[in-house]
Amino acid sequence: MAKLIDGKAIAKALRASVTEQATRLSEAGVVPGLAVILVGDDPASEIYVRNKERAASKAGVNAQTIRYDAETAEETLLAKIAELNADTSVDAILVQSPVPGHIDEHKIQEAISPAKDVDGFHPENIGRLYANREGYYPIANTPRGIMTMLAHEGVKLAGKNVVIIGRSILVGRPMFALAQAADATVSLLHRYTPDNLRHELLQQADVVIVATGVAGLVTGADLKAGATVIDVGINRMADGSLVGDVDFASAEPVAGLITPVPGGVGPMTIATLLQTTAELAALHHGVTLEAGWQTI
Amino acid sequence: MAKLIDGKAIAKALRASVTEQATRLSEAGVVPGLAVILVGDDPASEIYVRNKERAASKAGVNAQTIRYDAETAEETLLAKIAELNADTSVDAILVQSPVPGHIDEHKIQEAISPAKDVDGFHPENIGRLYANREGYYPIANTPRGIMTMLAHEGVKLAGKNVVIIGRSILVGRPMFALAQAADATVSLLHRYTPDNLRHELLQQADVVIVATGVAGLVTGADLKAGATVIDVGINRMADGSLVGDVDFASAEPVAGLITPVPGGVGPMTIATLLQTTAELAALHHGVTLEAGWQTI
Repeated sequence: MAKLIDGKAIAKALRASVTEQATRLSEAGVVPGLAVILVGDDPASEIYVRNKERAASKAGVNAQTIRYDAETAEETLLAKIAELNADTSVDAILVQSPVPGHIDEHKIQEAISPAKDVDGFHPENIGRLYANREGYYPIANTPRGIMTMLAHEGVKLAGKNVVIIGRSILVGRPMFALAQAADATVSLLHRYTPDNLRHELLQQADVVIVATGVAGLVTGADLKAGATVIDVGINRMADGSLVGDVDFASAEPVAGLITPVPGGVGPMTIATLLQTTAELAALHHGVTLEAGWQTI
Repeated sequence: MAKLIDGKAIAKALRASVTEQATRLSEAGVVPGLAVILVGDDPASEIYVRNKERAASKAGVNAQTIRYDAETAEETLLAKIAELNADTSVDAILVQSPVPGHIDEHKIQEAISPAKDVDGFHPENIGRLYANREGYYPIANTPRGIMTMLAHEGVKLAGKNVVIIGRSILVGRPMFALAQAADATVSLLHRYTPDNLRHELLQQADVVIVATGVAGLVTGADLKAGATVIDVGINRMADGSLVGDVDFASAEPVAGLITPVPGGVGPMTIATLLQTTAELAALHHGVTLEAGWQTI
């Protein structure tokens, strides 16, 4: 019987921490500013962006969403990004994924100033992360949120065997870098990992992090008893239910700690986005946040 | 009985390929230019730098070494780097490691223009590598040289289980990124990996790459029969002999392919440095190199 990791509660505490910090920043005359660019009318993106706006406003972060129709030219977006880069009221910029096919997403990501790159997608920030550079730089919010969850649950990564499945630039690859920098031995698995190798590596893992979009890919039979299991997947089934990439029913009795879906990793992403926005605002306006201010 | 991977021969073929390319570039009025900055009088660095100069000159690359004494101020180096960044006769810049302790090596690395960063140490280039970005950018020469060796030996990484030991920014981490981008499942081990976990993971590996500076860390008992073993270590023993991080005597009968030490990975690093210099020169001067020009 695993202990459930309550992502909702951890995210709530993190948001409260951000709210407190935003209050302090506002006393110094600073309101953290987040600009979200949304291109097209993907319904899922609409929901994400609305959730971001709502959470931001509650936390004292000034969020603005800039909407463009699906036919918008790349140059229009690049011009807007240049404007936001120069706007001192904007501390954090993100372009909601996916963007329409005629737009070069990498070009867009590289146009955002690394100092406002709240998603941590700019090669300069990715490079700092992989080189484990000193100093502050934004890091992709989902893996950073997972690190917060693990810290909250007292899971130490140093010397542990961590298996990550899924190598997206949003989750798997930055997660690799973070776990590695925390002195874990890390294996990164993906669609070209043979099934038998996946099973073998999983059975040795102390911590398993799955972000593949394949419902039920990891089962209880894959796990070492007592493993910590972090499920980033959210898959909608034919019957409308939401399930993760881990088969919860078989995994939960074997795992030591496990995230539910929904209510696990999901809520951490937006809370961490707000955390990063507040940190960037403090940095841009020369306000020093106390070390460990976000400790929850 | 493993087949030996003859790094000397592969490096020689690569250098011949670079020489040919430098001849073509010179017909277009371009001489690839490499600037090496050497600070202090570390005897090992002196040897490396002299070897680089000699190999460059043979391959038609115009190498200049700029020497500074160990007390040189950081600002002096930064000013020189700025000058080299602006110098159109210089295509590639590297600062020989290690630099004296009063100099911030990261600051020096970041001062080099990413377009001339022949070692691939600039965060922007590291980020492009980890994000697996399209386009040309310099990549650390030792891991890139290892990829060349593997390709030369017909070792395909897609779907393979690759274990890398050692996580330096020179070898282990960029090697991780390259093997991962080639669709291998990759595990990155280091000093905090427990011995038993190292043994277990090694025994499952199709390809083992070791860069730790620990003589004989990997033995035949660690290996799966037929594994490809790449030994980046060069350790000088008390009796003056050079040995790798792999115990060659016990590993060679188990492995399928193995690099000797010396004469394995070592010669590839300088040859790849020249390759990258020639590519940067072509890029800077608008000369198109044929795809696969360096195929050897």
